[in-house]
Amino acid sequence: MLDDQLSDDVLEEGDYELDKEVFQPVLAALEAEDAEALVRALEPVHAADIADIIEQLGHDERVALVRLYGGELDGEILSELDEGLREEIVGAMSPTVLADAVRELETDDVVDLIEDLDEPQTAAVLRALDDDDRAVVEQSLSYPEESAGRLMQRELVFVPEHWDVGQTIDFLRNQEDLPEQFYHVILVDPRMRPTGYVTLGRLMGSARKVKMVDIAEDSFRTIPVMQDEGEVAYAFNQYHLISAPVVDADDRLVGVITIDDAMVILDEEHEEDIMRLAGVGESSLSDRVIDTTKRRFPWLAVNLVTAILASLVVAQFEDVITQFVALAVLMPIVASMGGNAGTQSLTVAVRSLATKDLTSANVWRVIRREAAVGLINGLIFAVVMGLVGVAWFGTPLLGVVIAIAMVVNLVVAGLAGVIIPVVLDRLDIDPALASGAFVTTVTDVVGFFAFLGLAAVMLL
Amino acid sequence: MLDDQLSDDVLEEGDYELDKEVFQPVLAALEAEDAEALVRALEPVHAADIADIIEQLGHDERVALVRLYGGELDGEILSELDEGLREEIVGAMSPTVLADAVRELETDDVVDLIEDLDEPQTAAVLRALDDDDRAVVEQSLSYPEESAGRLMQRELVFVPEHWDVGQTIDFLRNQEDLPEQFYHVILVDPRMRPTGYVTLGRLMGSARKVKMVDIAEDSFRTIPVMQDEGEVAYAFNQYHLISAPVVDADDRLVGVITIDDAMVILDEEHEEDIMRLAGVGESSLSDRVIDTTKRRFPWLAVNLVTAILASLVVAQFEDVITQFVALAVLMPIVASMGGNAGTQSLTVAVRSLATKDLTSANVWRVIRREAAVGLINGLIFAVVMGLVGVAWFGTPLLGVVIAIAMVVNLVVAGLAGVIIPVVLDRLDIDPALASGAFVTTVTDVVGFFAFLGLAAVMLL
Repeated sequence: MLDDQLSDDVLEEGDYELDKEVFQPVLAALEAEDAEALVRALEPVHAADIADIIEQLGHDERVALVRLYGGELDGEILSELDEGLREEIVGAMSPTVLADAVRELETDDVVDLIEDLDEPQTAAVLRALDDDDRAVVEQSLSYPEESAGRLMQRELVFVPEHWDVGQTIDFLRNQEDLPEQFYHVILVDPRMRPTGYVTLGRLMGSARKVKMVDIAEDSFRTIPVMQDEGEVAYAFNQYHLISAPVVDADDRLVGVITIDDAMVILDEEHEEDIMRLAGVGESSLSDRVIDTTKRRFPWLAVNLVTAILASLVVAQFEDVITQFVALAVLMPIVASMGGNAGTQSLTVAVRSLATKDLTSANVWRVIRREAAVGLINGLIFAVVMGLVGVAWFGTPLLGVVIAIAMVVNLVVAGLAGVIIPVVLDRLDIDPALASGAFVTTVTDVVGFFAFLGLAAVMLL
Repeated sequence: MLDDQLSDDVLEEGDYELDKEVFQPVLAALEAEDAEALVRALEPVHAADIADIIEQLGHDERVALVRLYGGELDGEILSELDEGLREEIVGAMSPTVLADAVRELETDDVVDLIEDLDEPQTAAVLRALDDDDRAVVEQSLSYPEESAGRLMQRELVFVPEHWDVGQTIDFLRNQEDLPEQFYHVILVDPRMRPTGYVTLGRLMGSARKVKMVDIAEDSFRTIPVMQDEGEVAYAFNQYHLISAPVVDADDRLVGVITIDDAMVILDEEHEEDIMRLAGVGESSLSDRVIDTTKRRFPWLAVNLVTAILASLVVAQFEDVITQFVALAVLMPIVASMGGNAGTQSLTVAVRSLATKDLTSANVWRVIRREAAVGLINGLIFAVVMGLVGVAWFGTPLLGVVIAIAMVVNLVVAGLAGVIIPVVLDRLDIDPALASGAFVTTVTDVVGFFAFLGLAAVMLL
């Protein structure tokens, strides 16, 4: 870890953080209500960074920016905005400006842009498109949210599988409008089922007489149009795909997904997992206070219920606590150690489930392993806390009580940390979402019960 | 959330999980020590999945697999293995088998493979390469770990910036060995400084007379060879790059990084953040029990120290607890609510720092927002807990005490959850790594102090 820290120091980083040099002129222009200065300040800034700047402004500054920057707010900036803000900004744009903004986007970006908007705004965007594009967008929207169908592009480059390199190159050279971004030529059979693909690089490097099938990639995979987008991202990451044809229920080619879209989904899925593990849900710094409060409230409410459960356990032992107030002093340590150990194994288990590294093939081995890790660390901390307990309060039996409670608690924490997410996963409940509350309930209840129960038996 | 759950149900998922149908024949072949059956069972399985299978086997089965599968263990499988296991497997392979395995890899994969191996194993792999490849690999290894230089490929496709499409196509068609994967042709000036790039798709779709500079991509960015790989991944994600030229200190072209490599890094960085937030550090299910125990121990030890600090606060109030044992019963609720609220705002802050959404431009706004969220939720839970306290113990003053403590605790949790990671980040300490311990210390200490201190003042 120290090594990491050291090697980090010699590397260049933080280059991409938006610094004061970018913000200062923007804020000054907003202050002065100077539209020209604002356009000038944002001229060299990438759309993704402009979106970040808008997200980092306060509400009043943001309103001023939309008013002053108006017509310059293009579709690319809109696509980059956080969902919450996108609605606010789109709502503040005039219909003609909005129409200009979306017309320049690729259809898959339009789909991404409007799927989180309200009904009237969606309609406004659709009206702004020309008929062909609107048909494509509406067809994409007919697939379920978070499906491969929503994610895919419909601009395709494919040739019959029996063609050779020369035919393919001539065909591509004569096409009027090739998509902006494509990396593979898809091979299809006479029934439009994709049977392989050839990278453009390989195509360029091969002689005209070479058959396309002979230079097709080994790692060919198709994606079902109804597949969950999280699974699509997994497939790209696991099998190092660059692009993949999307097929319908009859295995016919209907679209293509490229790695840049998969990378965005992978990023979102990770973010979602982290936030769910922390009990935050979807959230963004640009959300309003009231929205953030509402999102965090349910998790705190669940936690309150579990904490009250733990308190009820403590309440059973009021007598022994009254006699040995040292128990009240040491209680937080038991709860805290159990909670932390539980969170450790919980996090490993949740991530392993997400990456499909924890399966029925190794689940028992993993459970045994967590119990063993809990036991070893439990024994070490039992000795430490036993000594602390004796030294602090001068009661050897108290030391024994906390030592035994520590072992029990860490073993149970390890077991609960892996068993609970696995069971939730089997029940088709997202383990990242729900495991935390269950695991801390178990560690608190078991921890207090073991500690105070032992104390009642041994000290009274 | 319910919507998510519902829409998940209609989508296909779990397709990529390795199920019993894959495992059963492998386990049977290992049991029977039947090398042929093993090869047959793994024949249709992708290298990445074979690596996952190896990771999910028990230690004895794994040893048997290496012995039986031996020569079939190719470089691709080795690259896909978890670092810990890779060392074990490479150590068990004969030098000739190892040499065959690495010779078929691209040089950047060889670098990735050997950078985590021990000295003698690294030497063995290097010896297995032919002279040209060895020189390339050794040069890559001369860049610091986790730098763009380690990540980049050195097989480049570039042309002078003044060429036209026809010249470029003829040049590519006449090249003997183009790289397997390339998506752009890089344009360079006479001093080998990259000035733009053209996608192969755009090249194929343009007339021969068109100047290359006229069809170059807008979003051109170069990556400094010494840049941290996390920043590289950020740039690809933020600016939707597909590939990017890597340049040395004199801005000369030295390599190229493609999005598939950036996606792997993005995945690793996320994983690292999640694990660090949970106090787990690097970890994998295939680690040995003793390694896992050692990795988790330091975090539990830090937690023990902070828990003892909280206990010391409790110890100051032994008198009031002895008189009002209800305080001991309610204590866990105060600690638990504060800890959870702190973790919520901590997680949002750590992620916002990682994605560069929390900057000096909005830090004060975010701090105020967290305090406001803490205050609102604190007031709500104050009312709830006040009522619970009164109903449970029949002492109105106790209800007032816990209500006030709840407000104080949630506001402090919100503040600590954002201020601590921001300060750590300024001090160049990874906030994901260290924030948790500090934040729970603050919430525990402040929570107990507010609750028990108020009780001492108001109840005694």
